[in-house]
Amino acid sequence: MIHFDLFTLFPSMFDGPLSESILARAQAKGLLSVVRHDIRDWALDKHAVTDDTPYGGGGGMVMKAEPIFRAVESVLGLPEISAARPMDAPPCPIILLTPQGEPFNQGVAERLAHEPRLALICGRYEGVDERVRDHLVTDELSLGDFVLSGGELAAMVVIDAVTRLIPGVLGDPTGAADDSHSTGLLEYPHYTRPADFRGWPIPPVLTSGHHGQISAWRREQAVRRTWQRRPDLLRKAQLTDVERQRFAQSAERTVNE
Amino acid sequence: MIHFDLFTLFPSMFDGPLSESILARAQAKGLLSVVRHDIRDWALDKHAVTDDTPYGGGGGMVMKAEPIFRAVESVLGLPEISAARPMDAPPCPIILLTPQGEPFNQGVAERLAHEPRLALICGRYEGVDERVRDHLVTDELSLGDFVLSGGELAAMVVIDAVTRLIPGVLGDPTGAADDSHSTGLLEYPHYTRPADFRGWPIPPVLTSGHHGQISAWRREQAVRRTWQRRPDLLRKAQLTDVERQRFAQSAERTVNE
Repeated sequence: MIHFDLFTLFPSMFDGPLSESILARAQAKGLLSVVRHDIRDWALDKHAVTDDTPYGGGGGMVMKAEPIFRAVESVLGLPEISAARPMDAPPCPIILLTPQGEPFNQGVAERLAHEPRLALICGRYEGVDERVRDHLVTDELSLGDFVLSGGELAAMVVIDAVTRLIPGVLGDPTGAADDSHSTGLLEYPHYTRPADFRGWPIPPVLTSGHHGQISAWRREQAVRRTWQRRPDLLRKAQLTDVERQRFAQSAERTVNE
Repeated sequence: MIHFDLFTLFPSMFDGPLSESILARAQAKGLLSVVRHDIRDWALDKHAVTDDTPYGGGGGMVMKAEPIFRAVESVLGLPEISAARPMDAPPCPIILLTPQGEPFNQGVAERLAHEPRLALICGRYEGVDERVRDHLVTDELSLGDFVLSGGELAAMVVIDAVTRLIPGVLGDPTGAADDSHSTGLLEYPHYTRPADFRGWPIPPVLTSGHHGQISAWRREQAVRRTWQRRPDLLRKAQLTDVERQRFAQSAERTVNE
């Protein structure tokens, strides 16, 4: 069971992703709850202004600190934070989604899946007032080295990747362990019916009925594919000595050819 | 102007993200069009089955090749592809979103933003029949080294990151160029009103009115932040000789301390 508090200016962006497939079923089973908080509700002035021009000039708008602090303090039940009274013990990780954060990966997802509650703050526009970063958030996460219009899509990805790891969410209890990146390797090829599709047959080993051979073939395919596409992942993957030797030899052959 | 054809089993997952903020405005301005195609509509049997158990056993379900081939052929106006008549000239990039693909980053987004049309195939479940990968798609993209329930969230991220780069989509024509990762550096800190928020003041340089000093301060902050958080990015960033020298010295100090 995990609970997410989402702080966003666009709560309805989450409508589709939260109401389909695995996330919908996880909520129905009581394994996931998500509450969306509209940061505009905590703006102080009557026009609900949440952004303003940057000090020092330049294009774009910056999200104001005040509505974000007030929203998070109110939802998490924190006393008002200030220079005189900084936050000492955050009740849960308070995560800002930002291209400047720690890169999100499967290891981070596994770490977060142990938390009962996570607060996710979705930044928009040019950025978020630096004082949010310095004095309110406990973690900053980046989805990757690309620029998005805001943190909402990144938050959806974090919710999906983390929720899949909560026990009971996937029907098959070993389902998550076999996926790409869970083993440190890319996945082996999958085939389903028909055995001959438009003249392209499946590899014969898969209908041999010989489980040992099927396992060995899949393992070899996974290592080979990782080797060809993402050799950077092999450094951290758990390979046998024989596998390391074989791929060292094939690397040498490639270099010599 | 860019057009996306989305192939998915969950077309309504895209409801929120496509109807808010920058993507909604880009569509209203005629700079973006997105058509969602439900792969189920191209299943051959009356139960609209799009997945089946994997050859060789193991947990999970595999997306069948036939409905995906038929959907893409029909939408892109291709003749039936087969071993006897392989596809020769794809009318546009046909991209499978998969954890086994090329990692998506800002460089890939910039490359894709030059295309008038992109087809995105969202895989679900354990995976997609390998024959889709081998004989239908032209590119495979991965959002990062983590596992999602499917390619839909990845497709949304690709649409957002690419659409921001289409001329006219962002109000400020220089808006996209200054963002984190566009310059190869993380962004400098942003501040907006109030100048003193709960006892935390903004850096005095930002109210100095001296544009040269503000620019220099921002540049230094961007380099410093990238140095502290993502030194891997500095190798590819364009730094001046003075900046390289200064940070080489500070690296040396850190090692000696």
